Amino acid sequence: MAQLKNRQWLLAARPQGMIKESDFRWNETTVPALKDGEILVRNLALSFDPTQRGWMSMDTYIPAIPIGQVMRASTIGQIVESRKQGFAKGDLVQGLFGWEDYTVTDGTGLFAVEKVPSGTDPLLALSLLGITGLTAYFGTLSVGTPKSGETFVVSGAAGATGSVAGMIAKVKGCRVIGIAGGKKKCDWLVNEAGFDAAIDYKNENVGEALSRLCPNGIDVYFDNVGGEILEMVLDRLAFRARVVLCGAISQYNEAEGVMAHPPRNYFRLIFHGARMEGFLVFHFAQQYPQARAELARWNAEGKVKNQVDLQQGLENAPATIIRLFTGANFGKQLLKLGDPD
Amino acid sequence: MAQLKNRQWLLAARPQGMIKESDFRWNETTVPALKDGEILVRNLALSFDPTQRGWMSMDTYIPAIPIGQVMRASTIGQIVESRKQGFAKGDLVQGLFGWEDYTVTDGTGLFAVEKVPSGTDPLLALSLLGITGLTAYFGTLSVGTPKSGETFVVSGAAGATGSVAGMIAKVKGCRVIGIAGGKKKCDWLVNEAGFDAAIDYKNENVGEALSRLCPNGIDVYFDNVGGEILEMVLDRLAFRARVVLCGAISQYNEAEGVMAHPPRNYFRLIFHGARMEGFLVFHFAQQYPQARAELARWNAEGKVKNQVDLQQGLENAPATIIRLFTGANFGKQLLKLGDPD
Repeated sequence: MAQLKNRQWLLAARPQGMIKESDFRWNETTVPALKDGEILVRNLALSFDPTQRGWMSMDTYIPAIPIGQVMRASTIGQIVESRKQGFAKGDLVQGLFGWEDYTVTDGTGLFAVEKVPSGTDPLLALSLLGITGLTAYFGTLSVGTPKSGETFVVSGAAGATGSVAGMIAKVKGCRVIGIAGGKKKCDWLVNEAGFDAAIDYKNENVGEALSRLCPNGIDVYFDNVGGEILEMVLDRLAFRARVVLCGAISQYNEAEGVMAHPPRNYFRLIFHGARMEGFLVFHFAQQYPQARAELARWNAEGKVKNQVDLQQGLENAPATIIRLFTGANFGKQLLKLGDPD
Repeated sequence: MAQLKNRQWLLAARPQGMIKESDFRWNETTVPALKDGEILVRNLALSFDPTQRGWMSMDTYIPAIPIGQVMRASTIGQIVESRKQGFAKGDLVQGLFGWEDYTVTDGTGLFAVEKVPSGTDPLLALSLLGITGLTAYFGTLSVGTPKSGETFVVSGAAGATGSVAGMIAKVKGCRVIGIAGGKKKCDWLVNEAGFDAAIDYKNENVGEALSRLCPNGIDVYFDNVGGEILEMVLDRLAFRARVVLCGAISQYNEAEGVMAHPPRNYFRLIFHGARMEGFLVFHFAQQYPQARAELARWNAEGKVKNQVDLQQGLENAPATIIRLFTGANFGKQLLKLGDPD
């Protein structure tokens, strides 16, 4: 096979504060020859996730991306060539590839390469049936354990994970209240996603709204943002409440390794016999197949919708990740790669 | 009955920072006549507990003690006169009475008056079989859920609750490491209480010691202190760890309602799929009888020892509560009242 040209974005610098386009460097190279056990994947679409901020900065649950290496991303692609058992040319696969036209991988690692059943919509595979939807699924059901009739609050509610978390809580019979930024997102939550109410943190007093909407306290809080909103929720917990720590996007761009605004009133957990629990989606990796099946069924039944914010073209990857941290995205942030040269 | 003289300590001021003797005011009065449904109790001994700092300052899970009222305390006493069904002269009772020779009460409220079985050592009833021991029991077993072979760390380990928590974890087959201040306390933990190791936070680097003593991480942390030690533990959690929030004595004397030093790295709960859970002992009130029976059995078998720091005389109550917050006490802080005039 003739050597393929490969366009890439490399990590140029560890971000200081907000991610900047200059944290990345454009590179053009060629695809190396495959070794035994490897596959060559043509990447079709990239996922953008808050956790990438951590990968850029420091060792977390996986090592930091080395400076000068391809920016890491959850990616879906199609196999162009395979020297790996069980994987064939034409298979759709997803895994932790990166911001490049082609990836060569042996398919091992924390998020091992998985085959996507043929016929699956690649964008659905990377959103509702990918890390984002699975994160909402396990965070809501396995950590939050909502019961019918309970009050479920989610922040970052119009985001990819938050909106799915809220819709799953609706399936389970909860009263669901979303916190999001701006009228458009809040209207969407109530009118399209089926939430019982939405709080616009850019234009409302969140504490007052929570007190009004949750007169008996908050039973489950699915936290995507941390910071002051977490504190407001902790002040309004119901007895035996569960706070699901999924992320803290308001805090990612702060100092590394510590949070600029940890919950000063975490002590409220004591008074309410409540818990705050963290998780990573890969802790539940063995349950992915049944989770995907249930999410796909709820999606087909119209109970859990998949809202995608689709950008185009590898060259726009840096601008697209910035959309995620400024809240410009509306739904799951994806980027579709054009045909490589 | 002739009017009895009653000596009391009233709350004179909400504490600013460390509790001072001037936060209390000595008062001498007489005992009022009993109404129907009330009992008159001669108080025998007072319990001193970190939670009293909260009661002095602000409304928490119970209303703050009003300024000018008797200082509230967990107390054991003997009934002198009863106009309440089911309670008779001579009965030993415990409840939330106060710093005074005599208490008149209808026996209702958050910690309702309970009869203590005759023959029970009053000091044992107020320590291992009282709120202190019950707090250790439910915090360890119902919240921490330690399993045999796990690593259990407790701070404030030589304190009344911490030492019992650690000894209960030993009964359950854990490796138990206590954090306490000073060689005397640490020696006691290892030599008398049966802990596997102790860390002297006044003379050792706690983080280094935890790393050395917990090479596989910490499975259960029973937190009595909050602050920096909580952060050091959060940095060393095992997968699916449980952090039991019992108290935060290092923080009680700080600003009200918020913690001066919340855990800046609470985010570590996410990476380890771990949880931080609070509780109050009265959430488990219906299980007190079986808990007391089990604690009494373990005590009789020598598995869970009862270490009491006994002070004498009502006049010394303010000095005694200060012992608790300076760490001068060694074991459960009690004060025995002398015979009233």
